[in-house]
Amino acid sequence: MAIPRLLHALGEVGLIARMRRRLHRDRSVIVGIGDDAAVLRAPASKRLLFASDMLVEGIHFRLPPSHHLPAGPKGRNSPSANRQVVGSSAGTEEVTKPTLIGWKALAANISDIAAMGGVPRWAVVSLGAPPSTPVAVVDRLYHGLERCARRFGVSIVGGDTVRAPQLIIDVAILGTVEPRHLTLRSTARVGDTLFVTGRLGGSLRSGRHAQFIPRLREAQALVTRVRVHAMMDLSDGLASDAWQLARASRVTLRIEAAAIPVAQAAGSVHHALVDGEDFELLFAVGARDTARVPARIGTCPVTRIGTVVRRGARVELQRVDGRITLLRAKGFQHF
Amino acid sequence: MAIPRLLHALGEVGLIARMRRRLHRDRSVIVGIGDDAAVLRAPASKRLLFASDMLVEGIHFRLPPSHHLPAGPKGRNSPSANRQVVGSSAGTEEVTKPTLIGWKALAANISDIAAMGGVPRWAVVSLGAPPSTPVAVVDRLYHGLERCARRFGVSIVGGDTVRAPQLIIDVAILGTVEPRHLTLRSTARVGDTLFVTGRLGGSLRSGRHAQFIPRLREAQALVTRVRVHAMMDLSDGLASDAWQLARASRVTLRIEAAAIPVAQAAGSVHHALVDGEDFELLFAVGARDTARVPARIGTCPVTRIGTVVRRGARVELQRVDGRITLLRAKGFQHF
Repeated sequence: MAIPRLLHALGEVGLIARMRRRLHRDRSVIVGIGDDAAVLRAPASKRLLFASDMLVEGIHFRLPPSHHLPAGPKGRNSPSANRQVVGSSAGTEEVTKPTLIGWKALAANISDIAAMGGVPRWAVVSLGAPPSTPVAVVDRLYHGLERCARRFGVSIVGGDTVRAPQLIIDVAILGTVEPRHLTLRSTARVGDTLFVTGRLGGSLRSGRHAQFIPRLREAQALVTRVRVHAMMDLSDGLASDAWQLARASRVTLRIEAAAIPVAQAAGSVHHALVDGEDFELLFAVGARDTARVPARIGTCPVTRIGTVVRRGARVELQRVDGRITLLRAKGFQHF
Repeated sequence: MAIPRLLHALGEVGLIARMRRRLHRDRSVIVGIGDDAAVLRAPASKRLLFASDMLVEGIHFRLPPSHHLPAGPKGRNSPSANRQVVGSSAGTEEVTKPTLIGWKALAANISDIAAMGGVPRWAVVSLGAPPSTPVAVVDRLYHGLERCARRFGVSIVGGDTVRAPQLIIDVAILGTVEPRHLTLRSTARVGDTLFVTGRLGGSLRSGRHAQFIPRLREAQALVTRVRVHAMMDLSDGLASDAWQLARASRVTLRIEAAAIPVAQAAGSVHHALVDGEDFELLFAVGARDTARVPARIGTCPVTRIGTVVRRGARVELQRVDGRITLLRAKGFQHF
């Protein structure tokens, strides 16, 4: 049987059946896709972690031109009318392959769970798409989701599929965490040393933003070896996210400009501070534990970038010439 | 201080702070909105239920004209260009108040959890909105969410807020279920009696679709009193949903046209079968337990509408004149 070309021809039942055949699930999944809700066996001794992350076509990604059809099966659903790019923002200048959109939608969630010290377990995916979407686009999107899910041990167990004027993918994730591994962003303490994983900036320019490896292994290595006081993942840019950590913990962070690991594609400390979409970890460790933080985990560098200097929610930047200024929180603006 | 009029002026941090102040949470919530993920205390002896439901402006609802601004703060985000209605479908003919959109987004999820025999506990909300959205619209939307959350004991614990060409609201819900109360749609048996709660059809015409009361109390009353073999909620219309149950359980359902409880706004058995958005329960009970199903639960009628007659995935309709025909599964089409 020939594969129907458009989502409209496949229908919701067909789409769900397609996804169901393909998606892997582990033994904790009692019922997966196909019922009113998924049924899961929760571990008794752990806490649950729950988060979601939405990507919208035209805002967070653009499809390659070949994935835009001249007209849908119904005139009013014409993608040319509805799939326009709205506003310019991170990610809209370049085109993203559907596989990478799927990967990124799940990887961003895994990054959130990793940053809490937890392990991702289950996800539900809500997909909005025009009826004129080629089935191949949806297939590739799920292929990317599934690749990411398998690599990080996540079972995709359900979700929703609806009609929409453009592609929308919202993933909700559920993870588990050992209570002693839980790392909030509100618990950094005065005297702590600040670290980041990886190198920052240029993520959009290099294309890394859509194929990044969430720092799950690194986060697990950290929380099992060291007492991490606070941790978060970097999504809006170090400048903006450091302020989040400072506000949540009500402490003043001092970041040393010369210490920031700048990615090659970033080109400057400024870009490393504001570009965003790094999906690296920012974490705080007590002074006594500082020496026990490894310089790298696998191939991922871990860099000391500053300290928590006093109480009061602020972020200071110590410039290369030694001057200390208030860091402006100007990373990615969502609205 | 004056309330900023547009979402653009409020920003993501402002929006999150607003939501955080307002949303109720119970003691199972260790960390709510504001970290990378919510942290929850899971009950050891129960199973988890996980589902999601997406509503998109122009597809599932339309905002009142007063909520459309002539132009956003950035020209390219003009709502008049982007907030057009795409395709005609259920719900787009009429306008829905933002409070009701919020209510419906959560209530549809609660209905899913109820239909599994479970109790809803926690939700994360992903919201997409144009920067030109009036803050008052977002406030009302969250007010509707919160009203529904309080009424049914759900804690809204996190989510995501992103820019989008139109309003998008995706709620992921997490519930718990006693293993002995779990009711799938795949476990109806030959000889079972079929029931529905409430009255069917005309939900869009009457406006019930956006202010329905999910049948949580009714579902709990049923699973604690009777052995319910299979249950699902009715969202696409009895004709379509009965096929889902028949396929999942691999049985033939025979529905008696004369027995279907037709809502006043539906006007005919045909509309009761195909209108959709009923959010009532369809369930199957063994012959021996049939007499123990109450005729009403509170003010909600419970009606016997047919039987499971044999194996093989089909749905038959027994017409008023006694003729039996195959029921066509033509409820709401998503694509």
